[in-house]
Amino acid sequence: MSLIERLFGKRQKSAAIARERLQIILAHERDGRTTAPDYLPALQRELMEVISKYVAVHQEDIKVHLERQDNFEVLEVNIVLPENKR
Amino acid sequence: MSLIERLFGKRQKSAAIARERLQIILAHERDGRTTAPDYLPALQRELMEVISKYVAVHQEDIKVHLERQDNFEVLEVNIVLPENKR
Repeated sequence: MSLIERLFGKRQKSAAIARERLQIILAHERDGRTTAPDYLPALQRELMEVISKYVAVHQEDIKVHLERQDNFEVLEVNIVLPENKR
Repeated sequence: MSLIERLFGKRQKSAAIARERLQIILAHERDGRTTAPDYLPALQRELMEVISKYVAVHQEDIKVHLERQDNFEVLEVNIVLPENKR
């Protein structure tokens, strides 16, 4: 199964989607021995600054979701992009 | 199914993993109408600069994979992190 299918499942086939979206996923797999500080939140803030140089991003259009399980930590940022003026 | 399970599947349960890893996924879902320039490659370069401020990253430990399907474009960057000196 491709990464696109794993991430978006069946949604791909829909003819037209309402809004353009950008999803950023930061997945950190620890080796269980290191006690390095957790840098995902700081990294996420900086990544958002970089992204806002490429697309106009409104705070209310950003959803952040953090998941932790065993040695895994996944930070998911979903951004609905503003509609292009036609 | 959680995002961690979708991304890592059964691999989670293995007791010890050899190396610490960081995965960055940039998924861009277009609305099919816009012809905005493709900014994922440039965005990916800048994100790597940000990441290298947080972790020492060696070029040979970075794998980049780009997938395109319908309105979807997914850029996956997998980084094997250097082992911590104990």
